[in-house]
Amino acid sequence: MDNRVGFIGLGIMGQPMAGHLLAAGCSLTVYARTKGKAAKLVSCGAREAASPAEVAARSDIVFLCVTDTPDVEQVLLGDSGVIQSARPGLIVVDHSTISPSATRRMAEKLAERGAALLDAPVSGGDVGARNASLSIMVGGDAKAFERVEPLLKKMGTTITRCGGSGTGQLTKLVNQILVSVTNLAVSEALTFAKKNGLDLDKTVAAVAGGAAGSWQLANLGPKMIAGDFRPGFMINLQQKDLRLVLQSAEESNTSLPAASLVHQLFTAAQASGHGKDGTQALFAVIEKLASLH
Amino acid sequence: MDNRVGFIGLGIMGQPMAGHLLAAGCSLTVYARTKGKAAKLVSCGAREAASPAEVAARSDIVFLCVTDTPDVEQVLLGDSGVIQSARPGLIVVDHSTISPSATRRMAEKLAERGAALLDAPVSGGDVGARNASLSIMVGGDAKAFERVEPLLKKMGTTITRCGGSGTGQLTKLVNQILVSVTNLAVSEALTFAKKNGLDLDKTVAAVAGGAAGSWQLANLGPKMIAGDFRPGFMINLQQKDLRLVLQSAEESNTSLPAASLVHQLFTAAQASGHGKDGTQALFAVIEKLASLH
Repeated sequence: MDNRVGFIGLGIMGQPMAGHLLAAGCSLTVYARTKGKAAKLVSCGAREAASPAEVAARSDIVFLCVTDTPDVEQVLLGDSGVIQSARPGLIVVDHSTISPSATRRMAEKLAERGAALLDAPVSGGDVGARNASLSIMVGGDAKAFERVEPLLKKMGTTITRCGGSGTGQLTKLVNQILVSVTNLAVSEALTFAKKNGLDLDKTVAAVAGGAAGSWQLANLGPKMIAGDFRPGFMINLQQKDLRLVLQSAEESNTSLPAASLVHQLFTAAQASGHGKDGTQALFAVIEKLASLH
Repeated sequence: MDNRVGFIGLGIMGQPMAGHLLAAGCSLTVYARTKGKAAKLVSCGAREAASPAEVAARSDIVFLCVTDTPDVEQVLLGDSGVIQSARPGLIVVDHSTISPSATRRMAEKLAERGAALLDAPVSGGDVGARNASLSIMVGGDAKAFERVEPLLKKMGTTITRCGGSGTGQLTKLVNQILVSVTNLAVSEALTFAKKNGLDLDKTVAAVAGGAAGSWQLANLGPKMIAGDFRPGFMINLQQKDLRLVLQSAEESNTSLPAASLVHQLFTAAQASGHGKDGTQALFAVIEKLASLH
């Protein structure tokens, strides 16, 4: 493809996502805060820039995938940030999960220079990033979306334009409410089953096909039963996203009792050393809570 | 089939379940507390008895499907209850959702007369009962289970023997924890989406296929969005089951913060007139909670 694209943030998600764009024939410029992270992509033909501003200067479309709101603010609005090279026609696509309201403010700042910011958080984890099977939830200008959609399809399978700026982030937060509270449902149900002496595998098999069924039960249930807490999605990151959920809920005067409860229970998980485990380690906390004496 | 079977309790579930046994060629004796409820089955060849004891006297296997623990105690242990005709070889199959510990006590009483009690609560609702597609979770004696399994297959598609007496009820309660807390996840997520101005249909479509997906989201989500609160499963019955969950949890020293929370929120739903609505009306309560002023 004859696109000059940039990619900023080459972590566990960004690295394979940028790789798909390079494999699709894009002319790729990359930047990572941590030295050495660009080496593999450079060896495959990518060019390394010294700053986000330099990435933007050399690209028509800049993708970024970093961790939290302050990281995106630094990359976009910092002294050597993307905004220094912003110009009419530049499109910035933010794959990070960050604050919807901060997203709207940054989109306005880029718009003053004629550049468009699309919020495009993803779900599907590192497996989805490697297999190009991510779900991508996009908010922002419709024309900019049309322009980047063919490139998003190189990284994901379900690409949805949710509406104006910030709606991609809001939809991702809806996803995180569902994921975390359903996880709590599974953790409590399996704790109840275990404390009452049920055969856990048989129990899951008996109920998973009906109204009790969920992705969380089918995928995390067996890991909870096996005590396999290796991370698919890390509790520390789930907590970051739940903070965004509760902050956005406060901004919109929305009371979320269950999301708030699961945030507190994940805090207990972090306090007992499970922060870098997968979210299925919530089960360990609920089980401990049921066995305090 | 050359079985003399009885069926006690001909409500929205029992009526079609008994009908499947009759259609399978069983010689059927029925009893319902409410006069007139047996008429349709009698017109199809069933015989009506004057009491549960009479049903048991005329049957090798007695099924029952009533509402709560006291109803089952009355049917089994009352003055004209099944126990009056209990004898070696009689098998009683209880499809009601009731207390696991009360189930074990009643099983012991029947065992003193040589009769077996299987707990066999179902999930799948009135639609599952009519279509003979119920999930049936069975606890109790393995030989008695083998004897009745061919008949259970006339009423359901997923038949699981979970273990000894009470384990069918416990597995059903696991199911109810999953169903109700996942429902809460969906209710909160859609409330957050609505308060933040998202297009709800688009939001569900964007997230339902991934880690956020569940039966509750796929099936109740669209009804919540449409404001269609007609009952699939009634809030008043969900509350009865959550009381059983919390009572069993207390008996086993198990702390269930989310199941307890959703029980309280369903109480708010009942208080605002939603008791006879379907469980998806939980959404209306969460939405009201988010809009109090």
